[in-house]
Amino acid sequence: MKVGIVGTGTVGRTLAHGFFDKGHDVAIGTRDVDALMARAEPDAMGDPPFAQWRLEHPSIGVVTQPEAMRHGEIVINATAGAASEAALGSGAEHLAGTIVLDASNPIDHASGWPPSLFVANTDSLGERLQAAFPEARFVKVWNTMTAALMTDPGGLAGGDHTIPLCGNDQAAKDEVAELLRSFGWRDILDLGDITGSRAMEAYLLLWLRGMGSFETGMFNTKFVR
Amino acid sequence: MKVGIVGTGTVGRTLAHGFFDKGHDVAIGTRDVDALMARAEPDAMGDPPFAQWRLEHPSIGVVTQPEAMRHGEIVINATAGAASEAALGSGAEHLAGTIVLDASNPIDHASGWPPSLFVANTDSLGERLQAAFPEARFVKVWNTMTAALMTDPGGLAGGDHTIPLCGNDQAAKDEVAELLRSFGWRDILDLGDITGSRAMEAYLLLWLRGMGSFETGMFNTKFVR
Repeated sequence: MKVGIVGTGTVGRTLAHGFFDKGHDVAIGTRDVDALMARAEPDAMGDPPFAQWRLEHPSIGVVTQPEAMRHGEIVINATAGAASEAALGSGAEHLAGTIVLDASNPIDHASGWPPSLFVANTDSLGERLQAAFPEARFVKVWNTMTAALMTDPGGLAGGDHTIPLCGNDQAAKDEVAELLRSFGWRDILDLGDITGSRAMEAYLLLWLRGMGSFETGMFNTKFVR
Repeated sequence: MKVGIVGTGTVGRTLAHGFFDKGHDVAIGTRDVDALMARAEPDAMGDPPFAQWRLEHPSIGVVTQPEAMRHGEIVINATAGAASEAALGSGAEHLAGTIVLDASNPIDHASGWPPSLFVANTDSLGERLQAAFPEARFVKVWNTMTAALMTDPGGLAGGDHTIPLCGNDQAAKDEVAELLRSFGWRDILDLGDITGSRAMEAYLLLWLRGMGSFETGMFNTKFVR
């Protein structure tokens, strides 16, 4: 499958690697390819320079954001929440009818500790993006965990934990669930329509607290029932 | 131990039963004892009339809210979030130095579905209550699960799931953790100071979505790490 990933931070890179590893045709998109490749310092999130990662992943296409969206039969939003609407907007014409897996979180990085969200409670980033690109078929997924688990659930407790998702389009959710199963996810929890993003994004507050207590992001919640 | 419970809905009743069952001296407080005992209809939340529950629990004291707070060496807030500050305020003089286990959630019942919170993200009910009663030693706990599990974690999956708590007073949290262990809780997750209430209350949005998907409240999250 042709997979277009928007965003070149840890989430974008990890998902690119995970999909490529399963035999998919992956392109990863950035605002400015030359600038990204020329950067020699870690980025604002502490990720190593992209060019270094690129050396280990020569078969993954590195393209502009709209090119990644054009490439993808499915598109993944792996940008920072505050940048997501602009990033997806740069290739909006490629999103009509396309499944968009939205891994973003509306973290307000200016808020310090404890972190807060720039949209919450009565609205969500997932809903805003679905509203901004009404012909895209958004599925909110992956925003509830550290990147390393997204395509490798077996890396923790043999994969015995839960991945929630939500979205308005049942066929899109079914297709995403099938992809998740191909990565080893066994407990996929459908939380309903895209307003479930309020719950999945609010969970980030708990996740960040958990990370503070565990001193690692290598954990996930299992819905025991 | 003398336990004072404020609130006579499902949470208050279940906790009263659970503590009494462990040999504690329990009083449960309401705004108006006569009115509560005289009520013949289910309450707004669908709980059966209190008088019916009372018949099965003759040794639990039924008193006013301030009397319950005076009674308690520890106090439990089991009121609806919107009513919590007024309820605790009615006996504020009994809260100085007292551990208050706060099980409340700031549910905005006027918001319909999906439900929302009347305080969220950058503030929380837990923080507001701690600020309103600065000499009380609040521990946020139990608000993340259905009442039936609060003092009976073994009722689900042999108790193999997690209970988070937070608060500013470490000694209070240690004492609460000891109480929780007496009920069979094994995975007690300390999320730090009372600002952790933002995370624990926001989780309610996810919990409610989960209840919608599972069609039961008999589930809980386990932090797998």
